[in-house]
Amino acid sequence: MSDSYFHSVPVHLPSGSVAPDGLLDAFWEYERALMANDLPALDRLFAPGENTMRGDAAGLLVGHDTISSFRNGRGGAPSRVIAEVHLRPVTDDAVLVVAVTVPPKGGRGQQTQLWRKLESGWAVEVAHVATPAPAINSAVWRVVGAPLVAGTVHTAHEDHPASHGPLPLDGQTVAVKDLFSVAGFAVGAGVPAYLAGSAPATSTAPAVLALLVAGADVQGIAQTDEFAYSIAGKNPHYGTPPNPAVVGGISGGSSSGPASAVGLGQASIGLGTDTGGSIRVPASYQGLWGLRTTHGAVSTEGLLPLAESFDTVGWLTRDHTTLRAAAAASVSGRKQMTLDRRFAVAPSLLSLATPEVAAAFRDLLAELTEEGLLADLVDVELGDIDKLFETFRTVQAAEAWAQHGPWIEAHPGALGDDIAARFAWASTITAEAEALSRSALMVAEARIAATLDDRILLLPSASSVAPATTADAGAIEATRAGTLRLTCIAGIARMPALSVPLLQTAHGPAGLCLVGPRFGDLSLVDVGGEFARGRV
Amino acid sequence: MSDSYFHSVPVHLPSGSVAPDGLLDAFWEYERALMANDLPALDRLFAPGENTMRGDAAGLLVGHDTISSFRNGRGGAPSRVIAEVHLRPVTDDAVLVVAVTVPPKGGRGQQTQLWRKLESGWAVEVAHVATPAPAINSAVWRVVGAPLVAGTVHTAHEDHPASHGPLPLDGQTVAVKDLFSVAGFAVGAGVPAYLAGSAPATSTAPAVLALLVAGADVQGIAQTDEFAYSIAGKNPHYGTPPNPAVVGGISGGSSSGPASAVGLGQASIGLGTDTGGSIRVPASYQGLWGLRTTHGAVSTEGLLPLAESFDTVGWLTRDHTTLRAAAAASVSGRKQMTLDRRFAVAPSLLSLATPEVAAAFRDLLAELTEEGLLADLVDVELGDIDKLFETFRTVQAAEAWAQHGPWIEAHPGALGDDIAARFAWASTITAEAEALSRSALMVAEARIAATLDDRILLLPSASSVAPATTADAGAIEATRAGTLRLTCIAGIARMPALSVPLLQTAHGPAGLCLVGPRFGDLSLVDVGGEFARGRV
Repeated sequence: MSDSYFHSVPVHLPSGSVAPDGLLDAFWEYERALMANDLPALDRLFAPGENTMRGDAAGLLVGHDTISSFRNGRGGAPSRVIAEVHLRPVTDDAVLVVAVTVPPKGGRGQQTQLWRKLESGWAVEVAHVATPAPAINSAVWRVVGAPLVAGTVHTAHEDHPASHGPLPLDGQTVAVKDLFSVAGFAVGAGVPAYLAGSAPATSTAPAVLALLVAGADVQGIAQTDEFAYSIAGKNPHYGTPPNPAVVGGISGGSSSGPASAVGLGQASIGLGTDTGGSIRVPASYQGLWGLRTTHGAVSTEGLLPLAESFDTVGWLTRDHTTLRAAAAASVSGRKQMTLDRRFAVAPSLLSLATPEVAAAFRDLLAELTEEGLLADLVDVELGDIDKLFETFRTVQAAEAWAQHGPWIEAHPGALGDDIAARFAWASTITAEAEALSRSALMVAEARIAATLDDRILLLPSASSVAPATTADAGAIEATRAGTLRLTCIAGIARMPALSVPLLQTAHGPAGLCLVGPRFGDLSLVDVGGEFARGRV
Repeated sequence: MSDSYFHSVPVHLPSGSVAPDGLLDAFWEYERALMANDLPALDRLFAPGENTMRGDAAGLLVGHDTISSFRNGRGGAPSRVIAEVHLRPVTDDAVLVVAVTVPPKGGRGQQTQLWRKLESGWAVEVAHVATPAPAINSAVWRVVGAPLVAGTVHTAHEDHPASHGPLPLDGQTVAVKDLFSVAGFAVGAGVPAYLAGSAPATSTAPAVLALLVAGADVQGIAQTDEFAYSIAGKNPHYGTPPNPAVVGGISGGSSSGPASAVGLGQASIGLGTDTGGSIRVPASYQGLWGLRTTHGAVSTEGLLPLAESFDTVGWLTRDHTTLRAAAAASVSGRKQMTLDRRFAVAPSLLSLATPEVAAAFRDLLAELTEEGLLADLVDVELGDIDKLFETFRTVQAAEAWAQHGPWIEAHPGALGDDIAARFAWASTITAEAEALSRSALMVAEARIAATLDDRILLLPSASSVAPATTADAGAIEATRAGTLRLTCIAGIARMPALSVPLLQTAHGPAGLCLVGPRFGDLSLVDVGGEFARGRV
């Protein structure tokens, strides 16, 4: 940035006021450092200590070091120039500075800063940064409309005249995971090269139609991890959707787009899939309600499979009522059973969770017990969890490779490194290993059902709160290993699993997971509602 | 709002600090007043005078009264609750307050306020408000994608292999006015009831294809005034798109969505239409470049007509280079002529402009003359402008009614009052009046061409800067009457017209309009570039 740029920017002051000595120099030095991503200078120009704040659309960060580590992780601020500056001196040592910012691609942003003169010089104590909104947040959405597909009126059948009464999902907006067919749109599955070769669907998946017929609008098609084969939400092509519940945390996946759309208030229902935790994990990380349905309870027609032995449809919402309505609209007419309030915990599983999640889980169970909600609770032992997980992931991998292997082999370089490596491993599963695991799976399913005996299993939805997007691969892998061991149980047992945002830790929310008997989906949501009453 | 709400919100202070007396009471009183839209209380709780500021995504307002009139015009703030409050006392009489806000439909916002203790009590001197982004700004867009339609690669023909060199519009993003066919999407024309009955297009309009083939992506389909029969941009169904150049100003229309998308940095090219000013007016109001092409120079196939005698295709951009590239990609291969630098002004037209626009126009012409850019400039007289306009609007109305009348009669209530009234008037044009006007139109076209004699006519693009969205109907109608008399000349003469953002007034930008000989489109853009050099 040249001197002529600094000197050409209009600086407005109340008449009679003057800019305190050194303030404008510090302001421009900050701007230079920001554009150069000069992290030491930025650290120096933000006031030290726990009271320094920085907020933007992703959330409010409190504390110099928290802000510093955010900056370290983002790899530079978006480019911009300052169009105008307004100074409001408060004292000789404190000035509020409001700047209008202009990115190279147009639009206008605003930055409000409280500068304080410290012994070390001028420094920002509070910053509020607003950048111009993009047309679409492509980390969350692939396509959005106003709406993209209108409910009921547009899908009216002879037997659904437009002059109907109120419908159960009137006013609700759906973020559809980019695995479901929506007539007129291709399925992208989080993989741009797959999208490019994908023809527009000629019909809409029954899971989507059920919501439309019940009155909801489709707001848009939301992002997913590549081929849904992850629980992180880190899509290398479209980016990691924000986690509004944990500033700087990963969204969780693979239903990452629907989850963040709901967390951000950009949709009220996220329509997702859960093969090995893909609804429960983002629900847990973002403090949302999430239901994985009984395997087979909702049609997977028009859904791009990952592993059909485990693939299920489900929803993410911000509240119990909306989840109940979405589920009722979708499983209605099918056999559903009412569950007894009989519960089980598997104490050995708790060692898979981080101490803070395990503690929050234990505390909650103690509270629920005290309230009489867990009158019939027993401890159970589900067997060797490592073996269970190995069985699950072997069959999952064999099916995933059978489903996507030919395409992946024909499109080298189409996947990001992580998911490419996972599929490469999946390609090594031998027919013999798959057959052995399929046998073991049948045994495990029967044994879990027998052990639970129609009780509802309670466990944490994920082993940890959302890791930071900047966490190293080892740390993310460790939480993944723990989480998948928790989530695979419902997958193996083909049972419904509900995540209720009832665990709070100092580092973010986590879910209480209720794994229920098959076809107890709606009743399971009711039980979750009873647990949540007065809490969320 | 109940006391229990106020008392349950966590208020954070640096350790050792205390909230000054009365500050929190004032903060909560402000919150109450905001939710109740209690305008007198809000006026009282904002510091008086010219130094008070309030900024949000729509822009920065400076001055208590400016802020007050913004509040008067918006009909209430969006509902929300406060999730947490952080106080940073600066002195006993000045506190920075940062609040995290949560709207009922989810997501999180932030509000940063500088409160000052005045003699009259605590008041906000500076406010910065951020609300959670919606999935889509439906005042600007009807559908957006990431992208919606990818350029070249997806439209690859045998003779356009993917392994081409750089293309002229690589990296550009297009906002397509919702009148053009885009394969797979219905045309809505700004009218939801029309959209509901509209089938998805089976092919893409050539004007859109030309941009895709040149490498641009379609970002989305952008809003328009109903059936494009307006120059205001106030769509009663989808809202008025923001005008980033004039906070609180109307966008201009009917290419309102493409214009605002470009102004907001959400697209780099707005693909629009101009029948009676629908590109030039929003370009003028928003400080953008806009080109209405020669009638017939760009195919109108796949475009929903308004009045085919005048309908033209064109583009809005933020800079000259992009406009030149979009135009070259679209008219390339057609006959185009190079224009002499010979110019004309019609002094009598200037009385149609507001004094500030007329003054800016005269000042600019003086500057350009001084720089030798207007060496050959003559005054011309184009005849009775009221009669010219009457001729134009009669033929336009007859064609518009022939085009849309049957649908409008079959769908009572589908249009907003303003456009419905305009079509109702159009329906009264008799066949005789139409025939007389068509004859007069041919005469007028020939006379304008003869008068200009291949000179480029210079005039303001619009009679005024953008009126406020809150301006009364009479004020908007007055500017409309003046503007349409300026814009109809190119329509009658079927000439290209370029709006260059070279007029600056105290109340916003306006365009210098260059009306050129037929098929001098690209050369006209070059001339505009010469005028703009060193200015924008």
